[in-house]
Amino acid sequence: MTENVKINRGLKGIYFERSGVSHIDGAKGELLYRGYSINDLATQSTFEEVCYLLIHSELPTASELEAFDAQLKAARTLPAPVFDIIRACKGGHPMDVLRTAVSALAALEPDSQATGEEAFLTNGIRLTAQVPMIIAAHEAIRNGRDPVPADPELSHAANWLWMLKGEKPSAEAAQLADVDFILHAEHGANASSFAARVTVGTEANLHGAIVTALSTLSGPAHGGAAEDVMKMVHEIGSPDNAAAYVKEKRGNREAVTGFGHRVYRAEDPRARHMREGVRQLGEEMGAPEWYEILQAVVEAMKPYARHGLNVNVDFYSGVIYQLHGIPMDLYVPIFAIGRMPGWIVQCLEQQRGNILIRPLTLYNGPDERPYVPVSQR
Amino acid sequence: MTENVKINRGLKGIYFERSGVSHIDGAKGELLYRGYSINDLATQSTFEEVCYLLIHSELPTASELEAFDAQLKAARTLPAPVFDIIRACKGGHPMDVLRTAVSALAALEPDSQATGEEAFLTNGIRLTAQVPMIIAAHEAIRNGRDPVPADPELSHAANWLWMLKGEKPSAEAAQLADVDFILHAEHGANASSFAARVTVGTEANLHGAIVTALSTLSGPAHGGAAEDVMKMVHEIGSPDNAAAYVKEKRGNREAVTGFGHRVYRAEDPRARHMREGVRQLGEEMGAPEWYEILQAVVEAMKPYARHGLNVNVDFYSGVIYQLHGIPMDLYVPIFAIGRMPGWIVQCLEQQRGNILIRPLTLYNGPDERPYVPVSQR
Repeated sequence: MTENVKINRGLKGIYFERSGVSHIDGAKGELLYRGYSINDLATQSTFEEVCYLLIHSELPTASELEAFDAQLKAARTLPAPVFDIIRACKGGHPMDVLRTAVSALAALEPDSQATGEEAFLTNGIRLTAQVPMIIAAHEAIRNGRDPVPADPELSHAANWLWMLKGEKPSAEAAQLADVDFILHAEHGANASSFAARVTVGTEANLHGAIVTALSTLSGPAHGGAAEDVMKMVHEIGSPDNAAAYVKEKRGNREAVTGFGHRVYRAEDPRARHMREGVRQLGEEMGAPEWYEILQAVVEAMKPYARHGLNVNVDFYSGVIYQLHGIPMDLYVPIFAIGRMPGWIVQCLEQQRGNILIRPLTLYNGPDERPYVPVSQR
Repeated sequence: MTENVKINRGLKGIYFERSGVSHIDGAKGELLYRGYSINDLATQSTFEEVCYLLIHSELPTASELEAFDAQLKAARTLPAPVFDIIRACKGGHPMDVLRTAVSALAALEPDSQATGEEAFLTNGIRLTAQVPMIIAAHEAIRNGRDPVPADPELSHAANWLWMLKGEKPSAEAAQLADVDFILHAEHGANASSFAARVTVGTEANLHGAIVTALSTLSGPAHGGAAEDVMKMVHEIGSPDNAAAYVKEKRGNREAVTGFGHRVYRAEDPRARHMREGVRQLGEEMGAPEWYEILQAVVEAMKPYARHGLNVNVDFYSGVIYQLHGIPMDLYVPIFAIGRMPGWIVQCLEQQRGNILIRPLTLYNGPDERPYVPVSQR
């Protein structure tokens, strides 16, 4: 048995593929989608445009964008049995219900079985449109309301808020949701995208890969951070308590949620866009204390910043959702809405020149031993 | 941007963790579960015992085995809404329906949300009992029959055949299914087990990880081989055609399905147990031609054996299922029944001293470029 091999725990620092989708400079705190800075995209682009950019490698012309938008809007339909399935498990966590419904779509829509470039593109765009519909339908059903039909006049982000709440969102609210989706759209070989690639590596279809991604995103160490930050903010309660909270956590060598990232040593470049959103929204809604608590935590965490413990994207997003009156268990599903194009494009990349992703474990169990029948044990 | 890094495509040869569960010697063609040879286990053990061995590291005493068996049998129940969900998507591929139902169980059984050693053990045993029930219930429902209730008098394998067909299986048929499950129970860092570990790495629950595993197993390059072999056998039709079939495939540089494995260079040690089963069963059932076709393919493939192209476990299993009258689209779900303990134990291992599994992709996209508004494109 091989003994002198290197064990790459967590596959930290291991490159498994080239990718032209996003570039993360963890030391400088920079993120590019296809060469465009996340700062430019968050302030000047739209989620539809970013979807197109990620999937087709270039920003669309006006007519390309129009056609893409029309395709996304036309895909805003769900087969009727999906609603029965949501009803049958409506009491579950929204991530579990979303995953169950996406898995069921593979059984309900026969063309979801196809693989290849064309099938992944078509099914990817359809799923991008369907995921927010499923989440909104579940939220309606579990509250005894009828699901709100999609509105073809509205953008992806505005339609999401419309379906979720049954009222037209303000331009500001729709804009904030749009930026949130842009910031979450793609992030290299993160655990959920990587897991989706492992699924595609066996030549599975896209629905299977998205189901894998949803399972993997659901873990608190990945998509669950925004929810955990919100719980922390409630626990702290007032800006004055933040320093003591951080001191106790660090004293017990516990992590402070929303800080630190496997890849970033500098501040997560996505965080500042959410920070500004929290500040503005808090002021507008007469609830500035959430922002103040968050900033007091950041202040108390400053001594640890040089160890790479900076705020990440999910430090601020939870408070935004809270101010919008969105239940905490929808925070991870919202992350999933945003991440759809990133998952799809990584699955497309994996499928081109596909290879089975199959690493090794080093055996450290017993040497070969003889079998003894149960009567002699 | 880093340029001189090594790209480990498919993570081939990369060790990411130590594991005491199974040892594969690909050069010698040997497989151990916890130190016991697969040959001893396939000929002398039972699936229940192998489950216990994999999960608890040692073979059980008689009373330990009895208690474990009772726990598995007691877990043979499904919440009523699962049947509604199966009905809602009954026309889908059985793997998609199975995955949808397992995903729904996470929403329907509140204790599936828990993580930690105890939760993974309890939920793992429950899911091991539930997976064959779901597959059999779907098979009944899509054929307009009522699902057959589990029989607490029967072993895991015999009960599976009973629920599937509604008649008590012969001792030989139950034994063959039992051996099939033992042979498929665990196989190191294969793609589905590895993907499940990636999901657990984000601190997700076991149901999420099993859903990921099911998605990943569904790909033709992983769990789909038995089905593909059966299609090939039908295409060949007679032993006389095998040599020409192989010659054409190899001439076109196409793979012959059921041959070759990422890890084995010698013959897959699981294959011979299935081979003997095919021969015997074919004779008993007056259908020896399937075995003859398979052996003619093996004969024609002999020149390629020195390149590591030997038969793998799935070369023979499809024919066994065919002789039992099991529909082809149930072959992958049957693989899943067998692999349950392997998935569970790998998720347990991953959770102990857990770490986020997050490798890297090397960016080869455009350098940073300025954003241009759509009106100027």
